Amino acid sequence: MTEEQAIREEDGLEPERVEAILEAVEAGDGAGVTRLLEPLHAADIADLLEQISPSERSALLALSSGEIDGDVLSEIDESIREEVIEALPDNVVADAVRELESDDVVDILEDLDAPQVGRILSALDRADRVAVEQALSYPEHSAGRLMQREVVVAPAHWTVGEAIDFLRGADHLPDQFYHVILTDPRMKPVGYVTLGRILSSAREARLTTIVEDSFRTVEAADPEADVAYIFNQYHLISCPVVDADGRLVGVITIDDAMNVLDEEHEEDMLLLAGVGEESSISDGALETVKQRLPWLVVNLFTASISAFVISQFESTIAALVSLAAVMPIVSSTGGIGGTQSLAVAVRALATRDLTASNAKRVVLRELGAGVMNGLGLALILGFGGALVYGDVRLGIVLGLAMITNQIVAAMGGVLVPLSLERWGLDPALASGTFVTTLTDVMGYLAFLGLATWLML
Amino acid sequence: MTEEQAIREEDGLEPERVEAILEAVEAGDGAGVTRLLEPLHAADIADLLEQISPSERSALLALSSGEIDGDVLSEIDESIREEVIEALPDNVVADAVRELESDDVVDILEDLDAPQVGRILSALDRADRVAVEQALSYPEHSAGRLMQREVVVAPAHWTVGEAIDFLRGADHLPDQFYHVILTDPRMKPVGYVTLGRILSSAREARLTTIVEDSFRTVEAADPEADVAYIFNQYHLISCPVVDADGRLVGVITIDDAMNVLDEEHEEDMLLLAGVGEESSISDGALETVKQRLPWLVVNLFTASISAFVISQFESTIAALVSLAAVMPIVSSTGGIGGTQSLAVAVRALATRDLTASNAKRVVLRELGAGVMNGLGLALILGFGGALVYGDVRLGIVLGLAMITNQIVAAMGGVLVPLSLERWGLDPALASGTFVTTLTDVMGYLAFLGLATWLML
Repeated sequence: MTEEQAIREEDGLEPERVEAILEAVEAGDGAGVTRLLEPLHAADIADLLEQISPSERSALLALSSGEIDGDVLSEIDESIREEVIEALPDNVVADAVRELESDDVVDILEDLDAPQVGRILSALDRADRVAVEQALSYPEHSAGRLMQREVVVAPAHWTVGEAIDFLRGADHLPDQFYHVILTDPRMKPVGYVTLGRILSSAREARLTTIVEDSFRTVEAADPEADVAYIFNQYHLISCPVVDADGRLVGVITIDDAMNVLDEEHEEDMLLLAGVGEESSISDGALETVKQRLPWLVVNLFTASISAFVISQFESTIAALVSLAAVMPIVSSTGGIGGTQSLAVAVRALATRDLTASNAKRVVLRELGAGVMNGLGLALILGFGGALVYGDVRLGIVLGLAMITNQIVAAMGGVLVPLSLERWGLDPALASGTFVTTLTDVMGYLAFLGLATWLML
Repeated sequence: MTEEQAIREEDGLEPERVEAILEAVEAGDGAGVTRLLEPLHAADIADLLEQISPSERSALLALSSGEIDGDVLSEIDESIREEVIEALPDNVVADAVRELESDDVVDILEDLDAPQVGRILSALDRADRVAVEQALSYPEHSAGRLMQREVVVAPAHWTVGEAIDFLRGADHLPDQFYHVILTDPRMKPVGYVTLGRILSSAREARLTTIVEDSFRTVEAADPEADVAYIFNQYHLISCPVVDADGRLVGVITIDDAMNVLDEEHEEDMLLLAGVGEESSISDGALETVKQRLPWLVVNLFTASISAFVISQFESTIAALVSLAAVMPIVSSTGGIGGTQSLAVAVRALATRDLTASNAKRVVLRELGAGVMNGLGLALILGFGGALVYGDVRLGIVLGLAMITNQIVAAMGGVLVPLSLERWGLDPALASGTFVTTLTDVMGYLAFLGLATWLML
């Protein structure tokens, strides 16, 4: 690789390039498409395929299947991966997957249908196929699915020189590795040495004298969320994976952990907003409806609870019709207060900063914040309402209802996700719907109940 | 380091340990606290300090300041860092920062007041102080603030053997490094070589023959968000930083990039929920109010717009009081629809999957989804409303209002963040408030307007 090539690699996916590629696709100019794709990183080609329309995608794939290598298949969003593989000739797919490491092949296979899985497995060498099938035997979303089986290992009694000679003579080393893992004679990992320490130590130094002080392993059956957590928490670059007996079976590297972390973030954000966690910007309108309509229907029914509550006060509203205009203010501000409390709690649960040790203190904190926010808002709304409608009693009712609902909102925002977590559910799941239903119902109930009591 | 030590390091922050530590703190048992903290990773000690109450925190710091080293200060959340540094004796803080790399010192100093900054700078050696001051001269949230200045460099014409001999003889190497950066005679980086390739190649191999194909640099003035993006997009482990003339000035490693990415996720989630981006689970009630009340007050005023809209239809409501009960259903479901569309758009903008190339198609997709979701919900609500109230016209009004509002919701959810992005603002900022105000107002307006027209 020359300097010029290295610098050319830095091309990104600018809008002008996308436009030029789409023009070449429309003109059926295969050579042009290939020339424009060639300097792009696989991740950018994958993004391009995600951003264009389905018809542009199939035209582009037909013209340039030669540029679609394994890395592109591995980078592409699962929402369109099946479609892309369907569109490619068998031999292109087979060549593409053959060049990937086993963990990347597993990642691709996880989201495909049985016939496509068979097609891809049969394209692999026997050894790779066995490796992939073994990885697939671990539970979904486990460390075993995430790990690569190619590990760089040295007996714990070796010296730096022995390790270097072994690495120089090795037939096949993984594309990316950052540590040499030291094992005992039963293949149990006992520590690891960074490549930097090996390179900067004398040949006769023993590996055990230069191991890292911090050393962690994960079990192949551990959930991938736990793996992502320890990479993030302890700033790991790679982590050995062991079986139930503590024997080394693979290694997970930071790029895989970062991916999991990113997916978890996305999932939390989408679940909180009441969208199916597989929503993607490349979905068509129909797929989008499938991801969203179920939650909207749920909300339709929970909103009907509010309607039922209000209908119980129809005589109050008939007597004082201006109540109908101001009543949504209490509910709406409650919904915002609940969402605020919820977002902080869900985030803290995800980063494991909200635990059994501080849950009680956080709930009390929310109570305090709810009371103070309620008082502040009650003052503004109470005075405002009394002034606009020239009715002190309306001001008092608005103020009291606001305080009540802000307390309910703040408490609900933290108690709902804490309860979901305790029951083993994802704390982000449906939390938003629970909390806003709670604050809507409580807002109308408190306001109309107090109005009936104090104003009629 | 022995095997036993390595395994002991794996202790985590279980609730039982937190309880035991707090008991020792209450008993004033300094030796016990030290013994319980000793096997913990700095990140876990930082989490502990974040999870306990302010009074427990100051008692613990008074008993165990010896255990608070630089890594703990570097790991601790900025919301309590100032408080912790305040509570520690000067010499403990000085010793703690002296052992850190310059990028970690910069990260700590960024959030402190001038007197504390002065105290810490004066504790550093002259060379470190100059390095830190130079880093602070780059803009906030730039690559220059993130990078470490200690780089491992080799002239592009060297062989593997020359590089290894240089590394073995080097006085001081960074704690973590994953590449040797190749530079030309003017210190411009021209490529990099992974340590794995160096270790597995023959001594006489030229470094230029084993450089990575993918090579990217960032400029010191680039925003840190761009840095996090390219690490995530291109799976980088480290990335050279250059000045405006292209000369190497430092290197950013993946742990720093992962931190930035994590902070950006948090910021998006909190901003979307209308919470100040510095909200933390360790905030007290007062701090929490400060982060949330401003948004609640904004929402109070936007909710008043809805109240004003409703008040224009008081005569309609007086004539048909049951309208008051059902009207929030249309607004509430619109709010959910808008939030769904918004969450997907904000996430796609953050990952740069929503760009100028596909914005038009995504907006059309949202339009289609809004129409279909609206039709689906209109059928359920229309029939339901007509049946419950025995009034076909009410069913028609509910259905038409629902369709209108779902279209507004879906379009608003994507157009609001796209517009904010175009104006150079954070697309998550206040998007939620804009969109729910829009769907609330439109929900009441469409429903009451249609009711006035068709039912009176």
